[in-house]
Amino acid sequence: MNIVIIGAGRVGTALSMALNNSGHNILKVISRSGKNTERLAGILGCEYGNKPVIPPASEVVIAAVNDDALYSLMKEINIPDNTVIAHTAGSVGLEVFERHITDFGVFYPLQTFTMGRDYDFHSIPLFIEANNKKSHSVLKSLALTVSEKVFDLSSEKRRYLHLAAVFVCNFVNHMYYAGKEITGMAGMEFNVLLPLLEETLEKVYELGPERSQTGPAIRNDKKTIEKHLDLLSFSPDLQKMYRVITGAIINKYTG
Amino acid sequence: MNIVIIGAGRVGTALSMALNNSGHNILKVISRSGKNTERLAGILGCEYGNKPVIPPASEVVIAAVNDDALYSLMKEINIPDNTVIAHTAGSVGLEVFERHITDFGVFYPLQTFTMGRDYDFHSIPLFIEANNKKSHSVLKSLALTVSEKVFDLSSEKRRYLHLAAVFVCNFVNHMYYAGKEITGMAGMEFNVLLPLLEETLEKVYELGPERSQTGPAIRNDKKTIEKHLDLLSFSPDLQKMYRVITGAIINKYTG
Repeated sequence: MNIVIIGAGRVGTALSMALNNSGHNILKVISRSGKNTERLAGILGCEYGNKPVIPPASEVVIAAVNDDALYSLMKEINIPDNTVIAHTAGSVGLEVFERHITDFGVFYPLQTFTMGRDYDFHSIPLFIEANNKKSHSVLKSLALTVSEKVFDLSSEKRRYLHLAAVFVCNFVNHMYYAGKEITGMAGMEFNVLLPLLEETLEKVYELGPERSQTGPAIRNDKKTIEKHLDLLSFSPDLQKMYRVITGAIINKYTG
Repeated sequence: MNIVIIGAGRVGTALSMALNNSGHNILKVISRSGKNTERLAGILGCEYGNKPVIPPASEVVIAAVNDDALYSLMKEINIPDNTVIAHTAGSVGLEVFERHITDFGVFYPLQTFTMGRDYDFHSIPLFIEANNKKSHSVLKSLALTVSEKVFDLSSEKRRYLHLAAVFVCNFVNHMYYAGKEITGMAGMEFNVLLPLLEETLEKVYELGPERSQTGPAIRNDKKTIEKHLDLLSFSPDLQKMYRVITGAIINKYTG
């Protein structure tokens, strides 16, 4: 398909590379900031620009910009007839398109993207939503060319998925940060934790999270919990997290 | 070496298998509850019992029992001359041995253990502490036969490591549980999150946790944070965790 990508950030870059690798024709990359645009367009061998001017031959426009930018973008963009536009945001519904566009939808990849990393899109779940049959058929067939895991999902349910992603990615990463800080207090490097991080993930694959839970909280081991809170006196935020997460584990398993 | 294992729980089982695989001679498995003892002794081809009676030929006794059981055990055990005893607890110091034993120390593997799983001990960090040169030399040479990552570490520092493990294993696992619950609200299965879990771990390997942080908290995206707190109204504990962890991320990155 002929595709225009709006946004040359982490999601726009990863998606345009994946679509390009799947044989699609990226016509143009559009980015307001222009920061990574020229470089990305160079890799993709396509035009680029900083205004939302969509070439008439476009079949799909993917807007991979942040939520606020998406609302401003929709005020100034003109979509050619027969072009379907989709956004990639976890928490934004279809209403952002509704005022002046005919065919629209959502193309949400459930992954955390970082510049400069390669992604195997085949295993990344893609969630599709559309305002009519035509948009749905275009977006779904496009999705199926890049991923083996394509699902129809409403905006309301997609918001929950995005929220789940915050817990298992953003919050997990902050637990890793906490582990690094505390390991530093023992004079050790972060990488001493890596076998434990790996086994924790492998266990959840095999057993699921409920059967994988271990540690002082699930045993309601008050002595160890008190000692740990003492050790954390160097950081009020780590202490607060320890208290709240431990309380939640106790409530779930022994409450 | 001739080794006696006290405790046939998760740590005792994993350690005795690893020591056995490394060519050591497990003389006896001792466990008060006797639950898994007979089966484990069968696998290891050794004696078993439920009283802490140590065969005179023992060179090392490893007490892999929980903290409270360790204190009671030390009241009734008799250690032969020339035998070194070590415990495997993250949060217990050397003082538990001090009253009536000559050679003692700590043999702490930094890992989460589950019954029935195989462990490649070569990559598991082992932390050693001892009360004198002889105990140190015995425990260190034993550790080096099972792991490539053997470190000397004081009780005080080991307590921090154990606390770090709570964050990166127990708390991470609870974030996975939260992700599963919330994914259920979207009508999706937990396994839709697995590519995201995997990438989150791979990123922290390559970039470290600070450079891997993404999501609404690090952007201090108040609108999304408020929406997420609304969506979490079905669970006060998830809501509390969201609020505290988000606050900690905001403090760290934008505070």
